[in-house]
Amino acid sequence: MSCDFLALAQPGVQKLSPYVPGKPVDELARELDLDPAGIVKLASNENPLGPSPKALDAIRAELAELTRYPDGNGFELKRRLAERCGVTPAQVTLGNGSNDILDLVARAYLAPGLNAVFSEYAFAVYPIATQAVGAVGKVVPARDYGHDLPAMLAAIDADTRVVFIANPNNPTGTWFGPAALEDFLAQVPENVLVVLDEAYIEYAEGDELPDGLDYLARYPNLLVSRTFSKAYGLASLRVGYGLSSAQVADVLNRVRQPFNVNSLALAAACAALDDADYLAESRRVNDAGMAQLEAGFRALGLSWIPSKGNFIAVDFGRDAAPINAALLREGVILRPVGGYGMPTFLRVSIGLPAENARCLEALAKVLDRA
Amino acid sequence: MSCDFLALAQPGVQKLSPYVPGKPVDELARELDLDPAGIVKLASNENPLGPSPKALDAIRAELAELTRYPDGNGFELKRRLAERCGVTPAQVTLGNGSNDILDLVARAYLAPGLNAVFSEYAFAVYPIATQAVGAVGKVVPARDYGHDLPAMLAAIDADTRVVFIANPNNPTGTWFGPAALEDFLAQVPENVLVVLDEAYIEYAEGDELPDGLDYLARYPNLLVSRTFSKAYGLASLRVGYGLSSAQVADVLNRVRQPFNVNSLALAAACAALDDADYLAESRRVNDAGMAQLEAGFRALGLSWIPSKGNFIAVDFGRDAAPINAALLREGVILRPVGGYGMPTFLRVSIGLPAENARCLEALAKVLDRA
Repeated sequence: MSCDFLALAQPGVQKLSPYVPGKPVDELARELDLDPAGIVKLASNENPLGPSPKALDAIRAELAELTRYPDGNGFELKRRLAERCGVTPAQVTLGNGSNDILDLVARAYLAPGLNAVFSEYAFAVYPIATQAVGAVGKVVPARDYGHDLPAMLAAIDADTRVVFIANPNNPTGTWFGPAALEDFLAQVPENVLVVLDEAYIEYAEGDELPDGLDYLARYPNLLVSRTFSKAYGLASLRVGYGLSSAQVADVLNRVRQPFNVNSLALAAACAALDDADYLAESRRVNDAGMAQLEAGFRALGLSWIPSKGNFIAVDFGRDAAPINAALLREGVILRPVGGYGMPTFLRVSIGLPAENARCLEALAKVLDRA
Repeated sequence: MSCDFLALAQPGVQKLSPYVPGKPVDELARELDLDPAGIVKLASNENPLGPSPKALDAIRAELAELTRYPDGNGFELKRRLAERCGVTPAQVTLGNGSNDILDLVARAYLAPGLNAVFSEYAFAVYPIATQAVGAVGKVVPARDYGHDLPAMLAAIDADTRVVFIANPNNPTGTWFGPAALEDFLAQVPENVLVVLDEAYIEYAEGDELPDGLDYLARYPNLLVSRTFSKAYGLASLRVGYGLSSAQVADVLNRVRQPFNVNSLALAAACAALDDADYLAESRRVNDAGMAQLEAGFRALGLSWIPSKGNFIAVDFGRDAAPINAALLREGVILRPVGGYGMPTFLRVSIGLPAENARCLEALAKVLDRA
């Protein structure tokens, strides 16, 4: 008889439920014997435009160096991000996706006996990263599906080391304005690290959302986390970044695996940063798709949570699991959010016009049948 | 005045010294104003052949899906690895390089109050991963620069949860045979996880080294760690894997970030596994380069540690730092191993014939001058 290596794992790890990703197209095709080409996946908040030609060129130019390790310091990308964001390279931490940044924060600043504060309906990686290091997640009830920042402030106690906030939030799409953020930051104890997750901020630029970067100089306990996976269209490559004080970045860079970001990601991210046209088109397609889906939901008599992201949570007013199952049979992959405590919702990523139309048609068919 | 976010970090993290990678060609070129094209880098145990055409084709075929998240379950690569290695897909853990596998083991099974046993002169990531989670690293003195397995066995105590062993070992190139491994595994307590790091095993296939896979069925406390970064030539992409009992793999997969391996790495690794020609050529070039370097060292009156890896540690019998500095000025990047307690050595990665010759010429010039 052999030993129980689950029981030997750290207590936090034993209780971990892994993140459930959006169902891949190939997986659905295998399971239901469907043609992958006919499947529409609006499940992972991916950029529907397809790759930026500039990013593709940068990748192709890097292929000759495939056998070489990446630049572990990410010199060039950090230099460009620093220039773009008005910080120094020493304030930048590169991550294998922004998931990595959230994980590094938990590993550096959380442990058994300590806690992290985050909102109900917040991104699933906050509780997972917290749990993985054996810390406690203090979940603060949401207000109209959004962060209740004053209540989150009140939840901070002597053992709190991190607060995770997202603007806009995934999977709800909710957001807060500059005054609310300012008010919050001004009152958070200075020994509590505030992680402001702006994974979707490029979809809301120019709207009434604050830009986290504007607060970095005044709040050394602020870390802004961003990603190339959404508006920049590089989800497959895994690259995100944190911007913070140089001291926090130094700590995170100690915990970071030396080659956590691969070479093609580094090259593609540099190119993507310069591709203003792609970013503008991402925004334009998203705004149009959001309007298209909202109009479609309205026609179907469905309600939804207004969103500033590249996705929208639609409410069926009853258990959404059978609706999701029926949509899968129609070849439409949306994202169930029952695990977020939103069992009557599905989250729909904004697609191209034809994808949005396919989703709405399938919804009409499935709801008509039910 | 702001808070001290170094003092707020976990004690293990505060004391972390980051891994020091081989100096990138571009960095040396910037620092000494050299032409990058004239620089020879034999510092990171990279495959000198350049990319496998099959891996390149697989990457190009995947580029259209750049905006999509990777398959978080790595279905296809796990299936192929399982088939190749005679295990089930549930026994495979995919890592962002095998560094990630080592890190996952530490996060799952180590914590303050517990310890990991490893050898003097062992790979730097063992102490780093151990330290990062606040556990103690018990360093066992080496024997002729190699692992002293009986002494490592004796070092295991009630608080030991992990033993890291490498065959062959980096940076020394030393190895042990099947009888020594069998003897070791038979005596390690069944609640101690043995991580057998075989990052370089493809360079020693058919030699007197054991194949870790042969021991998996009998030892549920064994994890074999391997990588695509060396003989498979995919260092830039970051992909490695662990093979273990399904239970250990389940635990590691809980801690693993959901999209830790990028899509291009998954596709390229599948193709690389099938590229027997590339692997054979890697081995052939390595054997020839090893002989070339050994002959050159002999002619220069230098001694070295016999190696089964794609690198060789050469001994100058005096502080190697000034020699390394002089070699850098000649445009030759080797790897200092003073941090490993080997201040009189430099580690030379096996290159192409012309690269090895450049290295030997530069060495002759520098030693003649000294």
